[in-house]
Amino acid sequence: MKLITFKREGVSRIGAIIEENVVDLHVAYKELLASEGKLRAEQIAEAFVPADMNGFLQGGKESLELAKQAIDFALNTKEANGYKLVFDINEVKVEAPVPQPGKIICVGHNYREHIAEMGRELPPFPVVFAKFANTVIGPQDDIPFYPISEQLDYEAEFAFVVGKRARNISQENALDYVAGYTIANDVTYRDIQRRTLEWLQGKTVEGSAPMGPWLVTSDELVDPSGLDVRLTVNGEERQKTNTANFVFDVKYLVEFLSNLMTLEPGDIVLTGTPGGVGVARDPQVFLKDGDVVKIEIDRIGTLENRVQSVKEVAKVK
Amino acid sequence: MKLITFKREGVSRIGAIIEENVVDLHVAYKELLASEGKLRAEQIAEAFVPADMNGFLQGGKESLELAKQAIDFALNTKEANGYKLVFDINEVKVEAPVPQPGKIICVGHNYREHIAEMGRELPPFPVVFAKFANTVIGPQDDIPFYPISEQLDYEAEFAFVVGKRARNISQENALDYVAGYTIANDVTYRDIQRRTLEWLQGKTVEGSAPMGPWLVTSDELVDPSGLDVRLTVNGEERQKTNTANFVFDVKYLVEFLSNLMTLEPGDIVLTGTPGGVGVARDPQVFLKDGDVVKIEIDRIGTLENRVQSVKEVAKVK
Repeated sequence: MKLITFKREGVSRIGAIIEENVVDLHVAYKELLASEGKLRAEQIAEAFVPADMNGFLQGGKESLELAKQAIDFALNTKEANGYKLVFDINEVKVEAPVPQPGKIICVGHNYREHIAEMGRELPPFPVVFAKFANTVIGPQDDIPFYPISEQLDYEAEFAFVVGKRARNISQENALDYVAGYTIANDVTYRDIQRRTLEWLQGKTVEGSAPMGPWLVTSDELVDPSGLDVRLTVNGEERQKTNTANFVFDVKYLVEFLSNLMTLEPGDIVLTGTPGGVGVARDPQVFLKDGDVVKIEIDRIGTLENRVQSVKEVAKVK
Repeated sequence: MKLITFKREGVSRIGAIIEENVVDLHVAYKELLASEGKLRAEQIAEAFVPADMNGFLQGGKESLELAKQAIDFALNTKEANGYKLVFDINEVKVEAPVPQPGKIICVGHNYREHIAEMGRELPPFPVVFAKFANTVIGPQDDIPFYPISEQLDYEAEFAFVVGKRARNISQENALDYVAGYTIANDVTYRDIQRRTLEWLQGKTVEGSAPMGPWLVTSDELVDPSGLDVRLTVNGEERQKTNTANFVFDVKYLVEFLSNLMTLEPGDIVLTGTPGGVGVARDPQVFLKDGDVVKIEIDRIGTLENRVQSVKEVAKVK
């Protein structure tokens, strides 16, 4: 299933993409229950298929199965009690699939071919760093470019979303804890990243994590290895790799991270970027106003965002 | 005011410390409204003085003023409609003041005297790094010591909590955006911190951020400079400094951080630790099972936690 968060008439909610349509999962499930005569339809829907992605992911496989029933109902009835259950995708704004992740954990130096081409040895441990949730923007948003730097850079990343509370999980069971996969651009203010040893300040600037367009659930995308990843800027290829080249794959990362901390549904892990980022090119090239950054990943889709310069934000007095 | 989060009979809620008593703010405000004949007392209390700290902080100064009215009411009536409004502090479990911060932003290398004694130059920018909310534990919790390292270390830190959404705030207005101050121990798995360049993995291990015992609101603690900070392990002094020695003070940090990202009510900033951490001692000394780590900060109080070794957590199958 392709899960999205979408906004329509000012209200954000989760949906499923079925061809060119969006099923409003919470309302569809509520109306399914109402059609069965359930007087507590609203409360039951709120409990099992809530309108927010974190809440829905907390429901795990049980909620996913109920969502599938809701989709069947919605596609058959289209409308119930005056509510539309299915929208054309052009009638909604698609947002980041998980708009408020509790954690955004990023992995660095995770592609073998890139490490080899730099003449480095494979690292014994993943490098991990953070972005905060203030960075998250959706597939239809522009990447804001704040006038605090002249080195805005892209990083194409394959991302997975945690679907079940995870602590000390072994690699063999790891994929049971993954809700699904999406695309992320780990947009980086390169000079700010590098002005101290710790990267956080250049990584967590407002709006610097475009994600989407949807979450492909792990029952549909069973094996996250062997997927081509490609990034272009204004149509020119800048990064190209395949998830088969991971030093630390999804299973490894679930084990590694869950041995340090509890992973919660909705937490997102960005698995690292390959070679070809702007700062490493010769000559260096950074993003500028109007550039279109497009990331394509096999079996997921395309995440495309335009860079939009933001004028100096007035100081709040 | 000293604000806490406390648990009693399984329910977490916010309170105010008045001498040896705890006022249950949400219930007290609700009963104050009910005593005035308000039929929507529960809903109004939920809107303005909710039981969770993040929600309460979102209400800003308006909610703080209403909380003060609730305290007066509670101290006069003690009990209303069969609900106790005031507890003895020994009747409750005190938790971390902000149990679920959206961001925990940590500052490194921020004490002048320590940098000087290392023979280093003052840095032009703060070093900032993250912990995630899975690290937060309260003043009455033990520090769990997981068997993934033999280098558990302490870091005494003065912390401030954001009280108002902040973006591009200048230093002169910065303290308006601070809800209050508390004590934090930036517990660090030192070898894990150092096995890669990015510190996150050694900083965000489960339970590695004891905080509390309370939040001293910024109307009571108006000037956060000039406060002594002292850490002992089993009564032996290990760290001692004063917040006058900050390289980057609270005002600077609010401006610096809010120029990168939006700070939200409930976000916590740990302002850095002075010299004297275990890894920098000669000989090095790390924390062990049963050690008691105590941090005292002027005008706030004392945060004391015992280290508790945790046996290997069984892998979940």
